[in-house]
Amino acid sequence: MERKGILIIIDGLGDRPIKEFDGKTPLEYANTPNLDKLAKIGILGLHDPIKPGQPAGSDTAHLSIFGYDPYKTYRGRGFFEALGVGLDLDKDDLAFRVNFATIENGIIVDRRAGRISTEEAHELARAIQENVKLPVEFIFKGATGHRAVLVLKGMARGYRVGDNDPHIEGVPPLKFTYEDEESKRVAEILEDFLRQACDILKNHPVNERRKKEGKPIANFLLIRGAGIYPNIPKPFPEHWKVKAVAIAAAALVKGVARAIGFDVVTPEGATAEYDTDEMAKAKAAVELLKDYDFVFLHFKPSDAAGHDNKPKLKAEMIEKADRMIGYIIENVDLEKTVIAVTGDHSTPCEVMNHSGDPVPLLIAGGGVRTDYTESFGERECMRGGIGRVKGHDIVPMMMDLMGRTEKFGA
Amino acid sequence: MERKGILIIIDGLGDRPIKEFDGKTPLEYANTPNLDKLAKIGILGLHDPIKPGQPAGSDTAHLSIFGYDPYKTYRGRGFFEALGVGLDLDKDDLAFRVNFATIENGIIVDRRAGRISTEEAHELARAIQENVKLPVEFIFKGATGHRAVLVLKGMARGYRVGDNDPHIEGVPPLKFTYEDEESKRVAEILEDFLRQACDILKNHPVNERRKKEGKPIANFLLIRGAGIYPNIPKPFPEHWKVKAVAIAAAALVKGVARAIGFDVVTPEGATAEYDTDEMAKAKAAVELLKDYDFVFLHFKPSDAAGHDNKPKLKAEMIEKADRMIGYIIENVDLEKTVIAVTGDHSTPCEVMNHSGDPVPLLIAGGGVRTDYTESFGERECMRGGIGRVKGHDIVPMMMDLMGRTEKFGA
Repeated sequence: MERKGILIIIDGLGDRPIKEFDGKTPLEYANTPNLDKLAKIGILGLHDPIKPGQPAGSDTAHLSIFGYDPYKTYRGRGFFEALGVGLDLDKDDLAFRVNFATIENGIIVDRRAGRISTEEAHELARAIQENVKLPVEFIFKGATGHRAVLVLKGMARGYRVGDNDPHIEGVPPLKFTYEDEESKRVAEILEDFLRQACDILKNHPVNERRKKEGKPIANFLLIRGAGIYPNIPKPFPEHWKVKAVAIAAAALVKGVARAIGFDVVTPEGATAEYDTDEMAKAKAAVELLKDYDFVFLHFKPSDAAGHDNKPKLKAEMIEKADRMIGYIIENVDLEKTVIAVTGDHSTPCEVMNHSGDPVPLLIAGGGVRTDYTESFGERECMRGGIGRVKGHDIVPMMMDLMGRTEKFGA
Repeated sequence: MERKGILIIIDGLGDRPIKEFDGKTPLEYANTPNLDKLAKIGILGLHDPIKPGQPAGSDTAHLSIFGYDPYKTYRGRGFFEALGVGLDLDKDDLAFRVNFATIENGIIVDRRAGRISTEEAHELARAIQENVKLPVEFIFKGATGHRAVLVLKGMARGYRVGDNDPHIEGVPPLKFTYEDEESKRVAEILEDFLRQACDILKNHPVNERRKKEGKPIANFLLIRGAGIYPNIPKPFPEHWKVKAVAIAAAALVKGVARAIGFDVVTPEGATAEYDTDEMAKAKAAVELLKDYDFVFLHFKPSDAAGHDNKPKLKAEMIEKADRMIGYIIENVDLEKTVIAVTGDHSTPCEVMNHSGDPVPLLIAGGGVRTDYTESFGERECMRGGIGRVKGHDIVPMMMDLMGRTEKFGA
């Protein structure tokens, strides 16, 4: 029997015990009637995106979940970010992700410039694109929130260049390091770019306005994640012989999805931020499932709450995802659909970053075996019927339930 | 302490929830007091014959369970089938599995000729062997039921030839395809063979009789699964330093067992069909365990019931296997024996074919740790103490309990 599939990734889903929740995790603490219903009729487990104890990036985790060995495929985050903001890149382009940040007296005081809005960041990015002059062609474009991308055309061979992002606040930015002559040239171009860009940002009306409003100003750029064309052996739709679409707002995830051959849709109102319109995503999923065999739905803000060490907010974001899922399961034929819900990785509040903890995983729908679990949470997942699998096992298990696998042997 | 081992494979054992069983699987629904007793005193788990979500053939699954990487070992099913019917093949032989089938006006209407009996099929096979004239030496021999094997002597280099079996009914047979010149020659020989064989079948007394009885006639041959000598690095008995015997009736399984160095026994009455004499197998197992260290006992008809989408029949076949196991555990010293019961793969009724679902696994006997499980079924296996392992983990775990493993390191 052929079925359709929906893979829902709640970014950074997994967590560790939270003291103020009496040791419950945000997922266990959250009120998630729809996920609990799926847990009862389906099967739970845990997955390690890469391997136990190994924290994965959002990019490498997604690659792994979609069946691409990140150690063989991955060549930097920047390229995915740039694909994700809709840029069509060439194979010899070099791409970086960029944060608008706040610097005071040479010290990074806010790595996200007070989580500046997408509109403001885009306005700043346009000013930089128009006024910076470099010896090579470049693209600088705003993504979501404080995020942007920088592409240096034709400079892929100089990709062995370090970040200027110290990844913590209260310290000065780093100098761009380099490992060879071609990367040294890139480091010089980046210094040049940064100097001109900071001049433009300093007195820009957006920052003047923010200053008046008492908000951190976006007067610096943290440039990182040099990335070149990923090594994708075979696009996902071709490998599995399915029509596949991704519903996502986060540039990085959109970029990964594009790189592996998914169509990508960002519904109106989906922002990848806390305010994202989850129902717009749910409706898009139900609609797209009519035309596509495989829908990948990405939900971002749970991860941000983990990075920000806000357990309550994380639980609220999970409840938001639960409402999204509720709409979907009410509007698809679960007997003819396989639905998997998981995270790309754990982002425990106490870590304020990705960790190597395994990630809750739920599979429900037509043909799925059931286990004894009653709700969706880390502890229930530990006793779930899937057991502990690898990230790259998820899609084959779904495809098998969807009737899309081929027997090896006779 | 050295122990003996019995590995019992209930073919196609695993399944998915069955609506008419209130969501229980055939194994959960079946009345299996002996398996449940073993579950109580032993330990349960699940295994993936190859990897999660990957459907395995019976041949590749058995290879994997016996420790041979099917991706490196497997070179087609036909060779195992031919070994399994007792043919002694040379390394340059090319072997096919064959079904007697029913064709009407150029359309395959029954891929198994009404599951023609072994005796009838053997009679037809003899007529073909005696009367077909080919430019190369060949062997055509009946196996069990509607199954037969065809060997083209010395033609191994032409093994890149397709099947004429469309694998579904209601359509015409396929033309033999080929990938190179040597395979083209094989395709031509197969066409020649098929034409002559059909002439012989058309008016054969067996078919005249079946016509009168209103049964589908065996007037066509579906030829498939071109296979050449498998790449077995080291025979099983040599690798594990055990005397090993297989009790099986299905040609394919007998062939795999022979290929990896097992002695093979088919007790009187063991047919690989629904009517197989399970007690004959049980008695043979008890008897052979006196002389051998490792007994592999294969039970086939549970798989056929899955292929036929007959959950009740599948449950009955599992009950039949349970009686077989009951006799064995009453007649061996469980303290001195390690007994493992599993399937080679899952054959869910809803799929009517092998799936990538993990397979219930039970290990009991001397030295075995116990867990909290109470009965043998998919859900109990999910909470079993073995966890979720790979097919190739089963034999090493048994051998270790049997005191037959060697320490690596000091």
